[in-house]
Amino acid sequence: MSVKALAWTSVPVAVGIALVHNALAVSLSLAVLAYYATYSFIPLVSDVFIKHGRFGKDRLKKDFPVVAESMGLIAGCVYLGVMFLFIPVPFVPFFRQQTDVSGTSGLDFFGVPMFPHETLGQYLAGLLSLFSMLFLGFVDDVVDIKWRVKIWMPLVACIPLLMVYMVTYNVTHIVVPIPFRGLFGLEKLVDLGILYYGYMAALCIFATNAINIIAGMNGVEGIQCLVIGSALLINSLYQVAITTYQSTKEAHLIAVYFLLPFLGVTIGYLRHNWYPSKCFGGDTYVYFAGMTFAVAGILGRFTKTVLLFMVPQIFNFLYSCPQLFGFVECPRHRMPQLNSETGNVEQTRVSLEKTKPLGKAMIRILEVLYLVDVERDPKTNKMISCNNLTLINLLLVKFGPTTEANATLRVGYTQLVFCLLGFCARYGLAFLFYRQDYQQGSTTETVRQNEL
Amino acid sequence: MSVKALAWTSVPVAVGIALVHNALAVSLSLAVLAYYATYSFIPLVSDVFIKHGRFGKDRLKKDFPVVAESMGLIAGCVYLGVMFLFIPVPFVPFFRQQTDVSGTSGLDFFGVPMFPHETLGQYLAGLLSLFSMLFLGFVDDVVDIKWRVKIWMPLVACIPLLMVYMVTYNVTHIVVPIPFRGLFGLEKLVDLGILYYGYMAALCIFATNAINIIAGMNGVEGIQCLVIGSALLINSLYQVAITTYQSTKEAHLIAVYFLLPFLGVTIGYLRHNWYPSKCFGGDTYVYFAGMTFAVAGILGRFTKTVLLFMVPQIFNFLYSCPQLFGFVECPRHRMPQLNSETGNVEQTRVSLEKTKPLGKAMIRILEVLYLVDVERDPKTNKMISCNNLTLINLLLVKFGPTTEANATLRVGYTQLVFCLLGFCARYGLAFLFYRQDYQQGSTTETVRQNEL
Repeated sequence: MSVKALAWTSVPVAVGIALVHNALAVSLSLAVLAYYATYSFIPLVSDVFIKHGRFGKDRLKKDFPVVAESMGLIAGCVYLGVMFLFIPVPFVPFFRQQTDVSGTSGLDFFGVPMFPHETLGQYLAGLLSLFSMLFLGFVDDVVDIKWRVKIWMPLVACIPLLMVYMVTYNVTHIVVPIPFRGLFGLEKLVDLGILYYGYMAALCIFATNAINIIAGMNGVEGIQCLVIGSALLINSLYQVAITTYQSTKEAHLIAVYFLLPFLGVTIGYLRHNWYPSKCFGGDTYVYFAGMTFAVAGILGRFTKTVLLFMVPQIFNFLYSCPQLFGFVECPRHRMPQLNSETGNVEQTRVSLEKTKPLGKAMIRILEVLYLVDVERDPKTNKMISCNNLTLINLLLVKFGPTTEANATLRVGYTQLVFCLLGFCARYGLAFLFYRQDYQQGSTTETVRQNEL
Repeated sequence: MSVKALAWTSVPVAVGIALVHNALAVSLSLAVLAYYATYSFIPLVSDVFIKHGRFGKDRLKKDFPVVAESMGLIAGCVYLGVMFLFIPVPFVPFFRQQTDVSGTSGLDFFGVPMFPHETLGQYLAGLLSLFSMLFLGFVDDVVDIKWRVKIWMPLVACIPLLMVYMVTYNVTHIVVPIPFRGLFGLEKLVDLGILYYGYMAALCIFATNAINIIAGMNGVEGIQCLVIGSALLINSLYQVAITTYQSTKEAHLIAVYFLLPFLGVTIGYLRHNWYPSKCFGGDTYVYFAGMTFAVAGILGRFTKTVLLFMVPQIFNFLYSCPQLFGFVECPRHRMPQLNSETGNVEQTRVSLEKTKPLGKAMIRILEVLYLVDVERDPKTNKMISCNNLTLINLLLVKFGPTTEANATLRVGYTQLVFCLLGFCARYGLAFLFYRQDYQQGSTTETVRQNEL
């Protein structure tokens, strides 16, 4: 689709916006527009990016073709452009002097509708944190920031978000699951106070880095983000539909407004990033995507649900720890390799001959859990090598070598299965863990606000 | 100063913050910290930037040495880091449950202090707009965005700012100067309505691009920004000191909080950028600086004062128009050139032989105004060439060739003279133009809010 066609598409969208006056419909239209824009702009700018040195080599193809890098920049810029245009939309009712505006403000002392500055502050802070990560991601792509510096970048980026959380929600209680209450002699509600802010900051650091370490194959970052983002969107839409509490509804609506255009740009990006890739997202894309989940989770008050849907990333991180923290040798690239005869991608392996006892013990534990493929010396039974400790390699070990596109799809299916399990946990197990609360009807406002 | 020393500096700053509890003192401390940080970080990252292709050649030195480019990125990142840390500071009184918090909110219906969400929204929107321009500036440095695209970028970047202006101030009246009232039969107050938002958007576009076209010599962007920023800061501090209106005071205080750390990073940057330059700021710096002035002017409600202090930039833009719009030939570089024998920089000239009559007429007008140096054929008296139409070349024409450092200083002095004239106009002429209003004591809240 050409840019000209894009311009024409925007006309019905604009008319739709003018007619519908429903923020959700506008958000959906803008998401579609964002998809078209991302899909159209990426081929237009690819050559410019390559010309200016923003390219990478596709190491899973025979001749290492050159591919434009950092295309998360286009996705991110389109996203933020669309979000900037969207900012005034939820406040249209206020400007029309109606009082059913979203936001917690109602009428002031004189019966005049008050502008919901808190809600606007939440949008702005969310966008500011998102923008910071997009920016730092691009800077990282361009000048390769050191690992020990960039791990802390989300901590600075999340300051505006946490500041606004503090002055709007400031809910820092967690509800203790029933089994733990007796076990640790805890009350039903535990106020974590400042620790809760530490937890949210940690979520930002985790979310931005987690997707980055399941990477290295065409489309693998995009497919994870598509599945996680869709799961979060469905969860929030469901919550908007069933909840009877205005504040819960508003919180989930904000998350929906952040997630819808994100899915739009992700699909547009993924169509070029899918096997065989014509563009790479770079750190720009994964940081931006991770921060979107964190922002949606914090502003929508469902951070635990975000973690639930990111179980594969948590697993991958824990699984990688022996290599990340140096107990087992960690090569520069741990991604799978191409078998140029079969055209399939295969697991890569790491030598265990110089590994110290502690590292070998870790591998042994993983071996007992059937989570690693260890090669042993047939005579001495000593460990010689094992697969690199990443989810992608594990899937290749368990299900055998396959084409790159299939290997990516396997990651996508894994993500999907865990998101479905996440839904079961969210709506099934939660009932078990908090049953008494439900039955006693004691889900007070405070309890409910921060249940999951 | 090393990074270690920087870390030690931050300790007394932190203690100062804890003790003083005065937002202005904290802002000043953070500005000093921002200066040290910028000054320390630039040499640390220069080699990394050069290694990753972020460098330019210094065309006014004999051997075109390679210099790290885009260092506005460091200035901008330090600035935003410091501003993020500063966000909670003006709201400390609220958290201490006092009611003298800055912001227009007071007590709510039940006598509980209300958080000043409007003020927080202004900070966040200002930072979001600033961040957008810093980001787009860096992207422009890396991938060279086309001129006709990037001229519109500030228009997107200023959306959050204008949105917040609308829901907080929404003052769109201007006070008509007394002489014009009779002349055009106008009322004292004219409501520009939506046009006023167009005016503010135009200010953003102008401010971000204006400094960029007085460039090309070591330190020349930095010195302009230092003088303009200082003038704006002095004006705002003076207004804070003399005003009796709480809302005017708060508006100017926000501007001070934005300007102080900006001056800090600018001085730190300028020390490396000064002749002979060890770093260049790139579009990143000038966009960031220009947007800072626009944000300070809009949130502080003194946009006309910003324009007053930017008269040299306005002059330079108007003076450049014949070349920018193609009436006179416009070479790729219009900056002065080095005379390698004398070591001085000299004006560069453009041929007028192919210039059409309209272009020649423009040059003739400038010649009559003594604003251009035209070379004529002694026999036919036809125009052969003239100096390139930039302020820098004009200063070299009027005061003769000089060293690069002196040529930069001349621009700085010119800026200083016009800022002093600006102060005279702001506090002298304004009295003449609006005298009756002053004398009648009729400066109502609306009039006063948007006087200059």
